[in-house]
Amino acid sequence: MQRQLRAALIQLSVGKGLSKNIAHAFKMIREAKSKCAQLIVLPECFNSPYEAAKECDIYLVGGTIPEKVDDKIYNTCTVWDPKGEMILKYRKLHLYDVDIPGGITFKESDILTSGNKLQTFSISDNIKIGIAVCYDLRFEELAKLYRIMNCELIIYPGAFNMTTGPIHWELLQRARALDNQMYIFGVSPARSEKGYIAWGHSQVTNPWGKVIVQAGYVEEIIYCDLDFEECSTARKQLPVFSHRRTDVYNTILVNACRD
Amino acid sequence: MQRQLRAALIQLSVGKGLSKNIAHAFKMIREAKSKCAQLIVLPECFNSPYEAAKECDIYLVGGTIPEKVDDKIYNTCTVWDPKGEMILKYRKLHLYDVDIPGGITFKESDILTSGNKLQTFSISDNIKIGIAVCYDLRFEELAKLYRIMNCELIIYPGAFNMTTGPIHWELLQRARALDNQMYIFGVSPARSEKGYIAWGHSQVTNPWGKVIVQAGYVEEIIYCDLDFEECSTARKQLPVFSHRRTDVYNTILVNACRD
Repeated sequence: MQRQLRAALIQLSVGKGLSKNIAHAFKMIREAKSKCAQLIVLPECFNSPYEAAKECDIYLVGGTIPEKVDDKIYNTCTVWDPKGEMILKYRKLHLYDVDIPGGITFKESDILTSGNKLQTFSISDNIKIGIAVCYDLRFEELAKLYRIMNCELIIYPGAFNMTTGPIHWELLQRARALDNQMYIFGVSPARSEKGYIAWGHSQVTNPWGKVIVQAGYVEEIIYCDLDFEECSTARKQLPVFSHRRTDVYNTILVNACRD
Repeated sequence: MQRQLRAALIQLSVGKGLSKNIAHAFKMIREAKSKCAQLIVLPECFNSPYEAAKECDIYLVGGTIPEKVDDKIYNTCTVWDPKGEMILKYRKLHLYDVDIPGGITFKESDILTSGNKLQTFSISDNIKIGIAVCYDLRFEELAKLYRIMNCELIIYPGAFNMTTGPIHWELLQRARALDNQMYIFGVSPARSEKGYIAWGHSQVTNPWGKVIVQAGYVEEIIYCDLDFEECSTARKQLPVFSHRRTDVYNTILVNACRD
């Protein structure tokens, strides 16, 4: 079965108002489709993934949107298949509450509620992909659990800032990729002049921990021809996963969240 | 209580025969002591740690030695206090069995038996240090468990090779440091012309994932003034450890090994 896949990471410029954002995102998705992308990933804030996935006959990771349920708001990533059906909904697990003097202060939990489930989807029945969002990238146990579930790619829509971006964005993705011998996508919005200033630098890292393509900070689509046999090869040559000493330690999912 | 410590990582040149090796290591330890090092780390193969630790009034991480017990051989790291007493014995947990075509083939388990316990020691009652060896560096769950035990430094005597050294030695240490907001030491032998060719590049990484000092590949002592308040600061400003979702996942020690 096919184990290759062309992916496009759209480092979208956002902030022009909702309808303009949507029209613009559509344009970029069509452009990625014209370059034969089969899996397209947006950074955030995209409200019409159904139409886009169906029209372009692609898998679309719709970045994240604020999802309101009763009195709660989640930071939610949806994934859509080529029929236009939503096949996954992931609610960001770790909320970003930090205070770096002279750097950045942020308290996401003032507004958002966290999710409590890992979520995966499959392409061609033989490529399993996990989803997580931004700050989740710092938690290696989450990535390990996706590895235990046999994922070969984790997609992180995210928007690191100008303090943590330069020192940690690339490193964290390389670490997750190498430790779990999988592909890692980090998909950021383009840097804007106003509001939240994102680091950009959307990135694809291969199962050896090597960055194979990285964007700059302006709007840009980066493409990558993935070959998941690369994961199989890395895992065969350096079988760290089977060398884990699960007689001594393990990473576990708490039962309630095993669905 | 004091939270500063001067460490010396001795990237020792080995292979001149046992008695010469020991004499040479002694000379290097005395040199590190003359530069006021309080914690001295060797890469491997040192047989007289007792005398050296006592004479120099230092903590000595004696690298690793083959430890024979009945018909088994372990790859063992010992730690000695300033009184010359052995305060820790760690047996390498993960044996290096890999096969990278065109790269390296190695099967440590043909000769060695693996340990099954994590080991820590403390300096000044308020600095806790974990020990692991070489290939153990690839297993992030081990590092996380030392973090859960409140370690602020993990010392990895190790000898990466010319295939994995250039691509992974630095990255793995930065990943462990950043994910766990602790100092990481990687201490290699110097590169030799014959036999096993080590990558060298002994390294100290700080709790932000930044390499603060790195050796070249020849024999060299690198020094580092550690301030463990750096760990406290990083952990306060970016409280990832308290943000772990232990209601959803956790890293656990298997009970039998909890001693």
